[in-house]
Amino acid sequence: MTPIQDWSELALAVIGGDQREQEIARCAAATGAQVRAFGFPWPERGITGVTRSRSAADAAAGAAVALFPIAGIKDGCLYAPGLASPPRIDAELIGGLAPGAHIFVGAADEGLRHLAKRFSHSVHEYEHDAEAKLMRAPSVIEGVLATLIANTQISIHGSTIAVLGQGTLGGLLADTLHKLGARVHAVARDPVQRAQASLYGVATADFDGLRPLLPHLDILISAVPSRIVDLEMMRQLRPGALVVDLASPPGSVDLEAAKNLPIKAIWARGLGARAPVTVGRSQWWAIRRRIGTLLGL
Amino acid sequence: MTPIQDWSELALAVIGGDQREQEIARCAAATGAQVRAFGFPWPERGITGVTRSRSAADAAAGAAVALFPIAGIKDGCLYAPGLASPPRIDAELIGGLAPGAHIFVGAADEGLRHLAKRFSHSVHEYEHDAEAKLMRAPSVIEGVLATLIANTQISIHGSTIAVLGQGTLGGLLADTLHKLGARVHAVARDPVQRAQASLYGVATADFDGLRPLLPHLDILISAVPSRIVDLEMMRQLRPGALVVDLASPPGSVDLEAAKNLPIKAIWARGLGARAPVTVGRSQWWAIRRRIGTLLGL
Amino acid sequence: MTPIQDWSELALAVIGGDQREQEIARCAAATGAQVRAFGFPWPERGITGVTRSRSAADAAAGAAVALFPIAGIKDGCLYAPGLASPPRIDAELIGGLAPGAHIFVGAADEGLRHLAKRFSHSVHEYEHDAEAKLMRAPSVIEGVLATLIANTQISIHGSTIAVLGQGTLGGLLADTLHKLGARVHAVARDPVQRAQASLYGVATADFDGLRPLLPHLDILISAVPSRIVDLEMMRQLRPGALVVDLASPPGSVDLEAAKNLPIKAIWARGLGARAPVTVGRSQWWAIRRRIGTLLGL
Amino acid sequence: MTPIQDWSELALAVIGGDQREQEIARCAAATGAQVRAFGFPWPERGITGVTRSRSAADAAAGAAVALFPIAGIKDGCLYAPGLASPPRIDAELIGGLAPGAHIFVGAADEGLRHLAKRFSHSVHEYEHDAEAKLMRAPSVIEGVLATLIANTQISIHGSTIAVLGQGTLGGLLADTLHKLGARVHAVARDPVQRAQASLYGVATADFDGLRPLLPHLDILISAVPSRIVDLEMMRQLRPGALVVDLASPPGSVDLEAAKNLPIKAIWARGLGARAPVTVGRSQWWAIRRRIGTLLGL
Repeated sequence: MTPIQDWSELALAVIGGDQREQEIARCAAATGAQVRAFGFPWPERGITGVTRSRSAADAAAGAAVALFPIAGIKDGCLYAPGLASPPRIDAELIGGLAPGAHIFVGAADEGLRHLAKRFSHSVHEYEHDAEAKLMRAPSVIEGVLATLIANTQISIHGSTIAVLGQGTLGGLLADTLHKLGARVHAVARDPVQRAQASLYGVATADFDGLRPLLPHLDILISAVPSRIVDLEMMRQLRPGALVVDLASPPGSVDLEAAKNLPIKAIWARGLGARAPVTVGRSQWWAIRRRIGTLLGL
Repeated sequence: MTPIQDWSELALAVIGGDQREQEIARCAAATGAQVRAFGFPWPERGITGVTRSRSAADAAAGAAVALFPIAGIKDGCLYAPGLASPPRIDAELIGGLAPGAHIFVGAADEGLRHLAKRFSHSVHEYEHDAEAKLMRAPSVIEGVLATLIANTQISIHGSTIAVLGQGTLGGLLADTLHKLGARVHAVARDPVQRAQASLYGVATADFDGLRPLLPHLDILISAVPSRIVDLEMMRQLRPGALVVDLASPPGSVDLEAAKNLPIKAIWARGLGARAPVTVGRSQWWAIRRRIGTLLGL
Repeated sequence: MTPIQDWSELALAVIGGDQREQEIARCAAATGAQVRAFGFPWPERGITGVTRSRSAADAAAGAAVALFPIAGIKDGCLYAPGLASPPRIDAELIGGLAPGAHIFVGAADEGLRHLAKRFSHSVHEYEHDAEAKLMRAPSVIEGVLATLIANTQISIHGSTIAVLGQGTLGGLLADTLHKLGARVHAVARDPVQRAQASLYGVATADFDGLRPLLPHLDILISAVPSRIVDLEMMRQLRPGALVVDLASPPGSVDLEAAKNLPIKAIWARGLGARAPVTVGRSQWWAIRRRIGTLLGL
Repeated sequence: MTPIQDWSELALAVIGGDQREQEIARCAAATGAQVRAFGFPWPERGITGVTRSRSAADAAAGAAVALFPIAGIKDGCLYAPGLASPPRIDAELIGGLAPGAHIFVGAADEGLRHLAKRFSHSVHEYEHDAEAKLMRAPSVIEGVLATLIANTQISIHGSTIAVLGQGTLGGLLADTLHKLGARVHAVARDPVQRAQASLYGVATADFDGLRPLLPHLDILISAVPSRIVDLEMMRQLRPGALVVDLASPPGSVDLEAAKNLPIKAIWARGLGARAPVTVGRSQWWAIRRRIGTLLGL
């Protein structure tokens, strides 16, 4: 790739995605870069500084940087819920990028890696970028709040809630619910995570300590990435309790088992799409830092 | 009215209302009182200890205490959105109560007052009961949060919000949004209310101070009970800003004027019905205290 | 008094007080007023725009506004802990003010009222000004925090604390300790105050509910303006517990009785003098508003 | 070492330290272990279940576990501020422990490591134990609060504060000051730490962003473990500003340079000794977990 001096010399393609990509494209154009876009919902009034391409290949042609969605790749195609047939990752698309291009994608698959290598591009996965993850965490938390409010007849304030899993998301959720006046129990296996939760005034427990709490819970939320909320655990809940699963597939809650109990269990998926402007902006923030480092801008 | 010794001797009628009244009736029955109910949505599994009456008059017959909804009376009828024709307040209904009965209602009208006097009942309005108002405030706040989350593409966290009016509701709202990470400006005419808001770390302004803030706001919320958010004010807002009116009719925001501006304006009504169990329970809590005092229970 | 058009025409005397008056005088001078001062500790570098007088009478001579300290008057003299003999309120001092002067004082006594009337001055008490009280509350709270930290071997975080009395100060204290991670019980007789405390996620109790809590408390703080913490109550406390009295004389805690118990009891007085700059400024803020209204400035 | 079945079979020596060790010894004895102690201030009423030894060697003789203080070792001796001559780490002391003993110490030096190896003991450093560090963090933070309150004439509430360094301590401090109503700027080089601070509603900056803030600060606190607060930086501060150094030796602030400026600079050392009961307890909590794992208890 020819070295560039300035954002205005950079051709950048945004391909696939949802409303978040509107903001990503807008932010990218605001740097002065030449931005071409395809494959996400196009706003009525357009996006200042962004050219709408007629195909994925058109958008990609000659671009030194390609931005693919965080939701990534499925069956060899880019995530693009707004299109009847999503853009396929093939030699035409990838080969059309400028030589030595940088491809950003949530998570790559074998096919993309293979093609990138063939055309001497480099692939940068950003799904687990720690900064972007923290920056979009409040948006996800607010999505959880909306879910709780929509599915309960009691207020969060004053209710008794266990949050299973105290990673970034679980920890922030426990703190937020505590601030809203809930009686929160932060549950984690790792004593360091429990000590962290306890800093913010939240009660803590390990999984042995969770058991006697179960009959007292109004709400049980799991952010643990494994199937730990099973029939036996849910049987201990009081009638009318709400169970919320925040985990990625295959999920943390046995939803089938829940159907036979007098409780309500829901799988809160896609919360990352809440607040697409904020989330898109934080995604761009992290990507921009990495482009800057890679290209010396 | 014959003096009674115990809740179990008390005949109590719950007439009209919505899901909140389910919880009020349930709580009332849990004291041991004889509770008859009519005019609110009846839950599939019934309500422990509560008898469902076939008419408002049936429920009222011989009751020493009548509970009418907080939403009160419209056109001479009790609020009862679940009924095709709401219960009329007439001599049959009111005259059927035990002599010297106590009638609790959000706010009475002339008709009810007149009838109560005629039959020597006393009327107790509870709409403005300070304790119950505070106890249901978190539920209302959570209704506002759900409204904000549903109507924005940015997160509350990090957004710039002005809350106009710093009474109980406005004050708690400013504090809650601040805790969620918003940049909050609490706006009030009264310097004491501003000093109160400032205790919780929120920035404050009077209405002169609001003007220069307007172009920077993502969200403007008014809890002021008069029409102060007018065309001139809303013209200063940035495109895409959200305006939320929390005031009772006739409302605080000129919604007609808003239609011609590139902003979104909504009237968030009926938030008191969010979390009906919590709200019903807090209503009952305040009413129970007053019954206890009145009847020496 | 001749009407004045502008702060620069105003002669203002600051007499008596402590470090707070340094800031009050500085703020007063910053308006452009002619400020003369006597009777509070004079800073080494002086105070910009403030003339140091040689006596109280000198400072007062011809002044249209006199500021006396919030700590007020004792035995006919102004509070002035830095002076060997504090300024006496007599005909020379009061008679020297400009005719129809405005005298601001924390709380007046009979002598001052009498003299003011004789010379046609008006007296304005500001001790209970709601705005100034709220504005200095955080300084007082921080004084309480320093007291707790100095007198305990456990951290506030994680300790169990009861705060008796939920007025402005007690309420803010309960909320602050809760934010620092203590397990707080807000105790009040008034159900409205309890409902208020409960908004911020704090547990609440009335005085009957306090009794079973006593053996579990690490710290008991009373902001109730009457002698309610007696031997019987303190006997229920665990050895090593800390009792803090925040009330004005005669105080809320029976300190004599405490001496015979294995607990530590202290009377935290003079907390209003913590953060004299902040407190002086908030005092001036409230006084300035009233001068502005009185003189049309 | 002969395997033991039960805490009651465990001989444990606590040697050196300060008031924290009183609580450590008390907690250790509460497990049923046989605890001997020497070298820390002995409370008047003794410590339930703990035997006071006449020398370090007496305490150590035959112990399977030795607890040395977190403050560790200086010039070959254990930290013991209460003793005229602190216990020397020599062959008599270390050789007297039971064969294969476990020695816990904040941080070991070469001498201890060498002796331990010679007698086949194992050494466990706990200074950087993540759980214990988090558990004592609130005590340290409260020590900082007391320091700020003692050294300012303004309240924390409403003041403008920069916290340099956003590790565990800096992060919790920024959040706590924010909760107390300060305008906090969390300063860190690492974007992930900034994103973390921003979650809790605190403003963030990198060190370039700190520069323009300097003239507006009331307080600057550094928790960065290197000498970064230099003359040039402190020259930008306003007269009367407070600078607090939280770093271990050699410290983060150039205190010599500060002497010639119209500011106040202090080194807040030994804050870990605030709340000795809480801190001792959290130390023990982490040590106990490790003993349990090592000995299968």
